[in-house]
Amino acid sequence: MTITLLGVIAGILTSCSFIPQAYKVIKTKRTHDISIPMYCLCTLGVFFWIIYGLMIKDIAVLLTNIVTFVPTVIILILTLKFRVHKNS
Amino acid sequence: MTITLLGVIAGILTSCSFIPQAYKVIKTKRTHDISIPMYCLCTLGVFFWIIYGLMIKDIAVLLTNIVTFVPTVIILILTLKFRVHKNS
Repeated sequence: MTITLLGVIAGILTSCSFIPQAYKVIKTKRTHDISIPMYCLCTLGVFFWIIYGLMIKDIAVLLTNIVTFVPTVIILILTLKFRVHKNS
Repeated sequence: MTITLLGVIAGILTSCSFIPQAYKVIKTKRTHDISIPMYCLCTLGVFFWIIYGLMIKDIAVLLTNIVTFVPTVIILILTLKFRVHKNS
């Protein structure tokens, strides 16, 4: 397996890994066990990776992190939303 | 802010982001809302990033992903453990 292919597979796995969690949150509307600080840090970090990818004009960094950004933002927003709903 | 600094900050944020979730799982022993497929994909992907970092001899990729690998494996193992306990 070429080294580049390994990097591409690693990127696809880590980027797509948040999709099942986003799906689970949307389906179950249960976020009690999910860490809000985690998704604040993760969303902010991935956002910085997107800016970084733009600045160094690296399409791989840019695309990987845009794919990651979408589900992480969904998870963060829904986790906050369902947590507020539950407490009100 | 230099571009490199932005990349370092992004790396620190995304690597450390799993630590609060690992802490929450250890403390609460509740993992019902956590997606097992997510942490299977994430752990495998981060493991591939570690191999990739070794092969291209890039200390940044290696360190970032070792820091990420530890909490993700903890979350995966504990999520499986508490899920099995709950069902038995």
